[in-house]
Amino acid sequence: MKIIIIGAGGAVGSAACDELGGRHELIKAGRNSGDVNVDISDRDSINAMYQETGKVDAVVCATGAAHFGPLTEMTEEQFMVGLTGKVMGQVNVVLCGLVHVNDGGSFTLISGILDRDPIRAGVNASTANAAVTGFVTGASIEMPRGLRINTVSPGLLEVSAGRLGDMFPGHVPVSSHRVGLAFAKSVEGALTGKVITVD
Amino acid sequence: MKIIIIGAGGAVGSAACDELGGRHELIKAGRNSGDVNVDISDRDSINAMYQETGKVDAVVCATGAAHFGPLTEMTEEQFMVGLTGKVMGQVNVVLCGLVHVNDGGSFTLISGILDRDPIRAGVNASTANAAVTGFVTGASIEMPRGLRINTVSPGLLEVSAGRLGDMFPGHVPVSSHRVGLAFAKSVEGALTGKVITVD
Repeated sequence: MKIIIIGAGGAVGSAACDELGGRHELIKAGRNSGDVNVDISDRDSINAMYQETGKVDAVVCATGAAHFGPLTEMTEEQFMVGLTGKVMGQVNVVLCGLVHVNDGGSFTLISGILDRDPIRAGVNASTANAAVTGFVTGASIEMPRGLRINTVSPGLLEVSAGRLGDMFPGHVPVSSHRVGLAFAKSVEGALTGKVITVD
Repeated sequence: MKIIIIGAGGAVGSAACDELGGRHELIKAGRNSGDVNVDISDRDSINAMYQETGKVDAVVCATGAAHFGPLTEMTEEQFMVGLTGKVMGQVNVVLCGLVHVNDGGSFTLISGILDRDPIRAGVNASTANAAVTGFVTGASIEMPRGLRINTVSPGLLEVSAGRLGDMFPGHVPVSSHRVGLAFAKSVEGALTGKVITVD
Protein backbone atom coordinates (compact mmCIF):
# COMPACT_ATOMS: atom_id res chain seq x y z
CA MET A 1 0.00 0.00 0.00
CA LYS A 2 0.95 3.63 -0.49
CA ILE A 3 0.42 5.34 2.87
CA ILE A 4 0.74 8.97 3.97
CA ILE A 5 1.92 9.30 7.59
CA ILE A 6 1.24 12.84 8.83
CA GLY A 7 3.37 13.71 11.84
CA ALA A 8 5.82 10.97 10.93
CA GLY A 9 8.61 12.56 12.95
CA GLY A 10 6.76 12.53 16.29
CA ALA A 11 6.66 9.76 18.88
CA VAL A 12 3.35 8.35 17.65
CA GLY A 13 4.13 8.84 13.97
CA SER A 14 7.49 7.10 14.37
CA ALA A 15 5.73 4.14 15.98
CA ALA A 16 3.40 3.91 12.98
CA CYS A 17 6.31 4.20 10.53
CA ASP A 18 8.35 1.53 12.32
CA GLU A 19 5.48 -0.96 12.16
CA LEU A 20 4.22 -0.21 8.64
CA GLY A 21 7.45 0.76 6.89
CA GLY A 22 8.67 -2.76 6.24
CA ARG A 23 5.57 -3.77 4.31
CA HIS A 24 4.38 -0.59 2.61
CA GLU A 25 5.46 2.50 0.69
CA LEU A 26 5.36 5.34 3.21
CA ILE A 27 5.11 9.04 2.39
CA LYS A 28 6.25 10.83 5.52
CA ALA A 29 4.61 14.23 6.05
CA GLY A 30 5.45 16.84 8.64
CA ARG A 31 5.38 20.56 9.26
CA ASN A 32 9.11 20.97 8.79
CA SER A 33 10.39 17.50 7.93
CA GLY A 34 9.65 14.39 5.91
CA ASP A 35 8.97 13.76 2.21
CA VAL A 36 6.25 16.39 1.99
CA ASN A 37 5.42 19.36 4.19
CA VAL A 38 1.93 19.88 5.63
CA ASP A 39 0.34 22.01 8.35
CA ILE A 40 -3.00 20.37 9.15
CA SER A 41 -4.31 23.59 10.70
CA ASP A 42 -4.33 25.00 7.14
CA ARG A 43 -6.73 23.46 4.65
CA ASP A 44 -4.77 24.84 1.70
CA SER A 45 -1.66 23.12 3.01
CA ILE A 46 -3.58 19.82 3.28
CA ASN A 47 -4.86 20.14 -0.29
CA ALA A 48 -1.34 20.92 -1.51
CA MET A 49 -0.06 17.77 0.23
CA TYR A 50 -2.61 15.58 -1.53
CA GLN A 51 -1.79 17.21 -4.89
CA GLU A 52 1.84 16.33 -4.32
CA THR A 53 1.28 12.74 -3.17
CA GLY A 54 -1.34 11.75 -5.71
CA LYS A 55 -3.72 8.88 -4.95
CA VAL A 56 -2.94 6.79 -1.87
CA ASP A 57 -4.36 3.71 -0.17
CA ALA A 58 -4.27 4.97 3.38
CA VAL A 59 -3.80 8.17 5.36
CA VAL A 60 -2.49 8.06 8.92
CA CYS A 61 -2.69 11.23 11.00
CA ALA A 62 -0.47 11.20 14.08
CA THR A 63 -0.50 14.87 14.99
CA GLY A 64 -2.84 17.50 16.40
CA ALA A 65 -2.42 20.19 19.03
CA ALA A 66 -4.25 20.58 22.33
CA HIS A 67 -3.77 22.99 25.24
CA PHE A 68 -2.70 21.74 28.66
CA GLY A 69 -3.56 23.94 31.63
CA PRO A 70 -5.87 24.17 34.65
CA LEU A 71 -9.62 24.25 34.00
CA THR A 72 -10.18 27.23 36.27
CA GLU A 73 -7.71 29.39 34.35
CA MET A 74 -8.52 28.27 30.82
CA THR A 75 -9.45 30.91 28.25
CA GLU A 76 -11.61 30.46 25.17
CA GLU A 77 -8.53 30.96 22.99
CA GLN A 78 -6.67 28.18 24.80
CA PHE A 79 -9.64 25.84 24.60
CA MET A 80 -10.02 26.47 20.87
CA VAL A 81 -6.47 25.12 20.33
CA GLY A 82 -7.72 21.56 20.71
CA LEU A 83 -10.94 22.14 18.77
CA THR A 84 -9.20 23.70 15.79
CA GLY A 85 -5.92 21.77 16.02
CA LYS A 86 -6.59 18.19 17.05
CA VAL A 87 -10.23 18.09 15.89
CA MET A 88 -10.77 20.38 12.88
CA GLY A 89 -7.24 19.75 11.59
CA GLN A 90 -7.75 15.99 11.50
CA VAL A 91 -11.30 16.33 10.19
CA ASN A 92 -9.94 18.45 7.33
CA VAL A 93 -7.36 15.73 6.55
CA VAL A 94 -10.37 13.46 6.00
CA LEU A 95 -12.71 15.90 4.26
CA CYS A 96 -9.99 17.02 1.85
CA GLY A 97 -8.68 13.48 1.40
CA LEU A 98 -11.90 11.68 0.51
CA VAL A 99 -11.25 12.06 -3.23
CA HIS A 100 -7.55 11.16 -2.96
CA VAL A 101 -7.84 7.76 -1.26
CA ASN A 102 -8.33 4.70 -3.46
CA ASP A 103 -11.46 2.52 -3.18
CA GLY A 104 -11.40 0.46 0.01
CA GLY A 105 -8.68 2.61 1.54
CA SER A 106 -8.60 4.04 5.03
CA PHE A 107 -8.05 7.00 7.30
CA THR A 108 -6.56 6.47 10.75
CA LEU A 109 -6.65 9.41 13.15
CA ILE A 110 -5.06 9.95 16.55
CA SER A 111 -6.91 10.60 19.80
CA GLY A 112 -5.62 9.47 23.21
CA ILE A 113 -6.39 8.12 26.65
CA LEU A 114 -7.50 11.34 28.34
CA ASP A 115 -11.15 11.07 27.35
CA ARG A 116 -11.45 7.79 29.28
CA ASP A 117 -8.79 8.33 31.97
CA PRO A 118 -8.47 12.08 32.60
CA ILE A 119 -5.62 13.95 34.27
CA ARG A 120 -5.36 17.42 35.83
CA ALA A 121 -4.90 20.18 33.25
CA GLY A 122 -5.97 17.79 30.50
CA VAL A 123 -9.56 18.88 29.90
CA ASN A 124 -8.86 20.33 26.46
CA ALA A 125 -7.25 17.07 25.32
CA SER A 126 -10.08 15.04 26.92
CA THR A 127 -12.53 17.07 24.86
CA ALA A 128 -10.55 16.85 21.61
CA ASN A 129 -9.91 13.12 21.94
CA ALA A 130 -13.59 12.42 22.51
CA ALA A 131 -14.49 14.64 19.58
CA VAL A 132 -12.21 12.65 17.27
CA THR A 133 -13.92 9.48 18.49
CA GLY A 134 -17.32 10.98 17.76
CA PHE A 135 -16.19 12.03 14.31
CA VAL A 136 -14.94 8.53 13.48
CA THR A 137 -18.22 7.05 14.74
CA GLY A 138 -20.33 9.39 12.65
CA ALA A 139 -18.14 9.46 9.54
CA SER A 140 -17.73 5.68 9.31
CA ILE A 141 -21.34 5.14 8.24
CA GLU A 142 -21.11 7.76 5.47
CA MET A 143 -17.76 6.90 3.90
CA PRO A 144 -17.97 6.46 0.12
CA ARG A 145 -16.41 3.63 -1.99
CA GLY A 146 -15.75 1.29 0.93
CA LEU A 147 -13.40 3.71 2.65
CA ARG A 148 -12.81 3.03 6.32
CA ILE A 149 -11.98 5.29 9.25
CA ASN A 150 -10.70 4.58 12.77
CA THR A 151 -8.82 6.33 15.54
CA VAL A 152 -5.88 5.03 17.54
CA SER A 153 -6.12 6.07 21.18
CA PRO A 154 -2.91 5.33 23.08
CA GLY A 155 -1.95 5.93 26.67
CA LEU A 156 1.19 7.85 27.55
CA LEU A 157 4.04 6.45 25.46
CA GLU A 158 7.08 5.01 27.22
CA VAL A 159 9.29 7.26 25.11
CA SER A 160 7.41 10.32 26.42
CA ALA A 161 7.19 9.23 30.05
CA GLY A 162 10.46 10.86 31.08
CA ARG A 163 9.22 14.26 29.92
CA LEU A 164 5.49 13.98 30.71
CA GLY A 165 5.15 11.23 33.31
CA ASP A 166 4.69 13.60 36.26
CA MET A 167 1.46 14.84 34.66
CA PHE A 168 0.11 11.26 34.46
CA PRO A 169 0.24 9.86 38.03
CA GLY A 170 -0.40 6.13 38.12
CA HIS A 171 -0.64 5.74 34.35
CA VAL A 172 1.11 2.72 32.85
CA PRO A 173 3.12 3.89 29.82
CA VAL A 174 2.67 1.91 26.62
CA SER A 175 5.35 0.74 24.21
CA SER A 176 5.82 2.28 20.79
CA HIS A 177 5.64 -1.24 19.37
CA ARG A 178 2.08 -1.69 20.64
CA VAL A 179 1.10 1.75 19.32
CA GLY A 180 2.48 0.74 15.93
CA LEU A 181 0.44 -2.45 16.00
CA ALA A 182 -2.72 -0.40 16.60
CA PHE A 183 -2.05 1.52 13.39
CA ALA A 184 -1.47 -1.78 11.56
CA LYS A 185 -4.81 -3.05 12.85
CA SER A 186 -6.56 -0.01 11.41
CA VAL A 187 -4.66 0.23 8.11
CA GLU A 188 -4.28 -3.46 7.25
CA GLY A 189 -7.37 -4.83 8.99
CA ALA A 190 -11.04 -4.45 8.12
CA LEU A 191 -12.33 -2.43 11.06
CA THR A 192 -14.19 0.83 10.62
CA GLY A 193 -15.72 3.33 13.03
CA LYS A 194 -13.61 1.99 15.88
CA VAL A 195 -11.45 3.41 18.65
CA ILE A 196 -8.37 1.20 18.79
CA THR A 197 -7.13 1.66 22.33
CA VAL A 198 -3.59 1.02 23.53
CA ASP A 199 -3.68 0.95 27.34
CA MET B 1 -32.28 25.58 44.56
CA LYS B 2 -31.92 28.55 42.24
CA ILE B 3 -31.32 27.11 38.76
CA ILE B 4 -30.56 28.76 35.41
CA ILE B 5 -32.06 26.83 32.47
CA ILE B 6 -30.43 27.98 29.23
CA GLY B 7 -32.55 27.13 26.20
CA ALA B 8 -35.61 26.84 28.41
CA GLY B 9 -37.97 27.37 25.47
CA GLY B 10 -36.72 24.40 23.43
CA ALA B 11 -37.93 20.81 23.55
CA VAL B 12 -35.12 19.66 25.86
CA GLY B 13 -35.17 22.80 27.99
CA SER B 14 -38.93 22.53 28.45
CA ALA B 15 -38.49 18.95 29.64
CA ALA B 16 -35.99 20.13 32.22
CA CYS B 17 -38.26 22.98 33.34
CA ASP B 18 -41.31 20.73 33.66
CA GLU B 19 -39.44 18.31 35.93
CA LEU B 20 -37.50 20.82 38.04
CA GLY B 21 -39.95 23.74 38.12
CA GLY B 22 -42.19 22.37 40.87
CA ARG B 23 -39.36 22.04 43.37
CA HIS B 24 -36.94 24.86 42.52
CA GLU B 25 -36.66 28.51 41.55
CA LEU B 26 -35.97 28.52 37.82
CA ILE B 27 -34.39 31.35 35.86
CA LYS B 28 -35.30 30.68 32.24
CA ALA B 29 -32.71 31.92 29.74
CA GLY B 30 -32.99 32.04 25.96
CA ARG B 31 -31.77 33.95 22.96
CA ASN B 32 -35.05 35.78 22.48
CA SER B 33 -37.27 34.60 25.31
CA GLY B 34 -37.33 33.79 29.01
CA ASP B 35 -36.41 35.75 32.12
CA VAL B 36 -32.96 36.67 30.85
CA ASN B 37 -31.50 36.75 27.35
CA VAL B 38 -28.29 34.91 26.46
CA ASP B 39 -26.47 33.85 23.31
CA ILE B 40 -24.02 31.14 24.35
CA SER B 41 -21.94 31.67 21.22
CA ASP B 42 -20.94 35.03 22.71
CA ARG B 43 -18.87 34.99 25.90
CA ASP B 44 -19.83 38.58 26.72
CA SER B 45 -23.48 37.59 26.56
CA ILE B 46 -22.83 34.67 28.94
CA ASN B 47 -21.03 36.94 31.41
CA ALA B 48 -23.88 39.46 31.21
CA MET B 49 -26.36 36.68 32.01
CA TYR B 50 -24.46 35.67 35.14
CA GLN B 51 -24.20 39.31 36.24
CA GLU B 52 -27.97 39.57 35.93
CA THR B 53 -28.80 36.30 37.72
CA GLY B 54 -26.31 36.59 40.57
CA LYS B 55 -25.16 33.43 42.37
CA VAL B 56 -27.03 30.23 41.57
CA ASP B 57 -26.97 26.61 42.72
CA ALA B 58 -27.12 24.96 39.32
CA VAL B 59 -26.80 25.76 35.64
CA VAL B 60 -28.55 23.63 33.03
CA CYS B 61 -27.61 24.13 29.39
CA ALA B 62 -30.12 22.70 26.94
CA THR B 63 -29.00 24.39 23.75
CA GLY B 64 -26.14 24.29 21.27
CA ALA B 65 -26.02 24.30 17.46
CA ALA B 66 -24.65 21.63 15.13
CA HIS B 67 -24.71 21.31 11.34
CA PHE B 68 -26.62 18.49 9.66
CA GLY B 69 -25.50 17.51 6.16
CA PRO B 70 -23.69 14.78 4.20
CA LEU B 71 -20.08 14.05 5.15
CA THR B 72 -18.89 14.18 1.55
CA GLU B 73 -20.22 17.70 1.03
CA MET B 74 -19.32 19.18 4.42
CA THR B 75 -17.22 22.34 4.51
CA GLU B 76 -14.92 23.49 7.29
CA GLU B 77 -17.31 26.36 8.02
CA GLN B 78 -20.22 23.94 8.43
CA PHE B 79 -18.19 21.61 10.63
CA MET B 80 -17.11 24.47 12.87
CA VAL B 81 -20.78 25.19 13.68
CA GLY B 82 -20.85 22.24 16.08
CA LEU B 83 -17.39 22.90 17.50
CA THR B 84 -18.06 26.56 18.25
CA GLY B 85 -21.80 26.25 18.97
CA LYS B 86 -22.52 23.04 20.85
CA VAL B 87 -18.99 22.57 22.24
CA MET B 88 -17.29 25.94 22.84
CA GLY B 89 -20.60 27.61 23.68
CA GLN B 90 -21.39 25.13 26.44
CA VAL B 91 -17.76 25.09 27.62
CA ASN B 92 -17.93 28.87 27.96
CA VAL B 93 -21.11 28.54 30.03
CA VAL B 94 -19.00 26.48 32.45
CA LEU B 95 -15.75 28.48 32.30
CA CYS B 96 -17.59 31.78 32.83
CA GLY B 97 -19.91 30.26 35.41
CA LEU B 98 -17.39 28.68 37.75
CA VAL B 99 -17.32 31.75 40.01
CA HIS B 100 -21.10 32.22 39.92
CA VAL B 101 -22.23 28.80 41.15
CA ASN B 102 -22.48 28.22 44.91
CA ASP B 103 -20.31 25.60 46.67
CA GLY B 104 -21.48 22.09 45.86
CA GLY B 105 -23.54 23.26 42.90
CA SER B 106 -23.64 21.77 39.45
CA PHE B 107 -23.48 22.25 35.70
CA THR B 108 -25.54 20.02 33.43
CA LEU B 109 -24.83 20.17 29.71
CA ILE B 110 -26.60 18.66 26.72
CA SER B 111 -25.12 16.19 24.24
CA GLY B 112 -27.19 13.52 22.46
CA ILE B 113 -27.43 10.02 21.10
CA LEU B 114 -25.54 10.51 17.81
CA ASP B 115 -22.07 9.82 19.20
CA ARG B 116 -23.16 6.31 20.20
CA ASP B 117 -25.83 5.66 17.56
CA PRO B 118 -24.99 7.70 14.45
CA ILE B 119 -27.26 8.66 11.56
CA ARG B 120 -26.56 9.84 8.01
CA ALA B 121 -25.73 13.55 7.85
CA GLY B 122 -25.14 13.59 11.58
CA VAL B 123 -21.34 13.52 11.76
CA ASN B 124 -21.02 17.08 13.07
CA ALA B 125 -23.45 16.33 15.89
CA SER B 126 -21.70 13.00 16.60
CA THR B 127 -18.45 14.92 16.98
CA ALA B 128 -19.92 17.70 19.12
CA ASN B 129 -21.79 15.30 21.42
CA ALA B 130 -18.67 13.23 22.03
CA ALA B 131 -16.68 16.40 22.66
CA VAL B 132 -19.14 17.50 25.34
CA THR B 133 -18.78 14.07 26.94
CA GLY B 134 -14.99 14.41 26.91
CA PHE B 135 -15.23 17.86 28.43
CA VAL B 136 -17.42 16.62 31.27
CA THR B 137 -15.04 13.71 31.89
CA GLY B 138 -12.00 15.95 32.03
CA ALA B 139 -13.57 18.90 33.84
CA SER B 140 -15.18 16.80 36.58
CA ILE B 141 -11.83 16.01 38.22
CA GLU B 142 -10.80 19.68 38.31
CA MET B 143 -13.97 21.35 39.53
CA PRO B 144 -13.40 23.65 42.53
CA ARG B 145 -15.48 23.84 45.75
CA GLY B 146 -17.27 20.53 45.25
CA LEU B 147 -18.93 21.65 42.03
CA ARG B 148 -20.24 18.84 39.83
CA ILE B 149 -20.67 18.51 36.07
CA ASN B 150 -22.59 16.02 33.92
CA THR B 151 -24.16 15.84 30.49
CA VAL B 152 -27.63 14.59 29.58
CA SER B 153 -27.57 12.62 26.33
CA PRO B 154 -31.06 11.88 25.05
CA GLY B 155 -32.26 10.10 21.95
CA LEU B 156 -34.69 11.74 19.56
CA LEU B 157 -37.50 13.25 21.62
CA GLU B 158 -41.07 12.11 20.95
CA VAL B 159 -42.10 15.75 20.55
CA SER B 160 -39.52 16.15 17.76
CA ALA B 161 -40.18 12.84 16.00
CA GLY B 162 -42.82 14.25 13.66
CA ARG B 163 -40.38 16.80 12.29
CA LEU B 164 -37.10 14.84 12.45
CA GLY B 165 -38.07 11.18 12.62
CA ASP B 166 -37.26 10.45 8.94
CA MET B 167 -33.61 11.27 9.65
CA PHE B 168 -33.52 8.70 12.49
CA PRO B 169 -34.62 5.37 10.96
CA GLY B 170 -35.26 2.73 13.60
CA HIS B 171 -34.64 5.03 16.53
CA VAL B 172 -37.06 4.76 19.44
CA PRO B 173 -38.14 8.26 20.47
CA VAL B 174 -37.92 9.10 24.16
CA SER B 175 -40.47 10.91 26.29
CA SER B 176 -39.90 14.44 27.54
CA HIS B 177 -40.71 13.14 31.02
CA ARG B 178 -37.72 10.78 30.95
CA VAL B 179 -35.47 13.57 29.62
CA GLY B 180 -36.61 15.75 32.50
CA LEU B 181 -35.77 12.99 34.97
CA ALA B 182 -32.23 12.83 33.58
CA PHE B 183 -31.77 16.51 34.40
CA ALA B 184 -33.15 15.89 37.89
CA LYS B 185 -30.62 13.07 38.35
CA SER B 186 -27.79 15.44 37.49
CA VAL B 187 -29.02 18.52 39.38
CA GLU B 188 -30.48 16.90 42.48
CA GLY B 189 -28.28 13.79 42.66
CA ALA B 190 -24.61 13.43 43.54
CA LEU B 191 -23.16 12.23 40.24
CA THR B 192 -20.28 13.99 38.54
CA GLY B 193 -18.37 13.39 35.32
CA LYS B 194 -21.19 11.24 33.96
CA VAL B 195 -23.12 10.93 30.72
CA ILE B 196 -26.75 10.45 31.72
CA THR B 197 -28.26 8.69 28.73
CA VAL B 198 -31.95 8.62 27.84
CA ASP B 199 -32.41 5.88 25.23
